[in-house]
Amino acid sequence: MSDILSRDEIDDALGKLEGWHHFPDEPSIKKSFEFKSFVRAFGFMSQVALLAEKQNHHPDWSNSYNKLQISLSSHDVNAITTRDIRLATSIEKLPR
Amino acid sequence: MSDILSRDEIDDALGKLEGWHHFPDEPSIKKSFEFKSFVRAFGFMSQVALLAEKQNHHPDWSNSYNKLQISLSSHDVNAITTRDIRLATSIEKLPR
Repeated sequence: MSDILSRDEIDDALGKLEGWHHFPDEPSIKKSFEFKSFVRAFGFMSQVALLAEKQNHHPDWSNSYNKLQISLSSHDVNAITTRDIRLATSIEKLPR
Repeated sequence: MSDILSRDEIDDALGKLEGWHHFPDEPSIKKSFEFKSFVRAFGFMSQVALLAEKQNHHPDWSNSYNKLQISLSSHDVNAITTRDIRLATSIEKLPR
């Protein structure tokens, strides 16, 4: 796959996003979110789910009441790719 | 809280449900689900979210594509209560 990103490319991309961190050993990029309520958290998750399905690239995520952690990775190539950055960028554009 | 369940009561209750396991050390009751697709998994999660909000008792859960793990616990009393069993029972009645 030609869309695998180097560490520098990942750092550059995450520099334009807020709150996303790179975990090279997994590999993944992650962000933790906190909302006012479960309804707000799950409403946000529903929007992310639609983005993910549209982009055919899906998060690993966990939710506990008003907290949400999203982890993105391109499991097929065990790397961070443009698909992860595209989904993270789309998530950042969602209304909170 | 008078709704805390004993280990025997939890075992009895889980005996009537399928695939739920008790983790006394956490404490939690958990079930792993597998669906045909992300759309099916998230559709199921949406139904669980509505049940959870209605019962004012919310899961700790994680999803990765077609896989879902639901963990229930009554964090306010650090125990398994009738609220956990009620939500698990409602989840079991959902269409898959």
